[in-house]
Amino acid sequence: MATEILEPPLSKVECATSLGHVTDALYVLGGKWKLPLILTLVQGPKRFGEIMKEVEGISPKVLAKELKDLELNEFIARRVYATTPVNIIYEATDYSRTLRNVLHELSNWGEQHRERIKQSMRR
Amino acid sequence: MATEILEPPLSKVECATSLGHVTDALYVLGGKWKLPLILTLVQGPKRFGEIMKEVEGISPKVLAKELKDLELNEFIARRVYATTPVNIIYEATDYSRTLRNVLHELSNWGEQHRERIKQSMRR
Repeated sequence: MATEILEPPLSKVECATSLGHVTDALYVLGGKWKLPLILTLVQGPKRFGEIMKEVEGISPKVLAKELKDLELNEFIARRVYATTPVNIIYEATDYSRTLRNVLHELSNWGEQHRERIKQSMRR
Repeated sequence: MATEILEPPLSKVECATSLGHVTDALYVLGGKWKLPLILTLVQGPKRFGEIMKEVEGISPKVLAKELKDLELNEFIARRVYATTPVNIIYEATDYSRTLRNVLHELSNWGEQHRERIKQSMRR
């Protein structure tokens, strides 16, 4: 990997502040599923079954719990349409769209990480 | 919160790719402690006890496990100095510095999130 020119390291106080903010962020976003679920719903509103298909490996029980958590924290909204049968749609709120940059950087990093793993397996 | 002008939504294929990358990233970085630990060590090399003090709430047992995981994934290096008593120092590798943007965005977001919580508590 090419060495990049790094900005000067953070001061002790800046670092402690930053550590607090990252901890705050992970407190609501932590775990295996929240960010993938937000990313899926930011793309467009979906039904429970559609989310199950898109986010591989999640069980219905865990998905139900995670959706409830995300709704409580106002990242998603659950809309119930009184059709027959009842139609329940989950959609991303504007607040979850504030995570755009976080998701973008995580996605970029994940891509580079996968490349790195591939290369190290070839060696 | 001010409404911001959003870029056009991702296509279905772009979204699935991005979802894969975010999942890859969370696979190695997931959990409550990895990113805070990396952030602490990016600031400078530290001993076990120093990390304990800086990262609040982590138990010695969990810290030992997390450090081992991070070492295996090449985010940190463990240096043993044959002094008396033996001196063990943990330091961030260049690879963990590739997470700079991710940490920066998470920290920004965490800061805004805390502001939002504060405001909603005032109401």
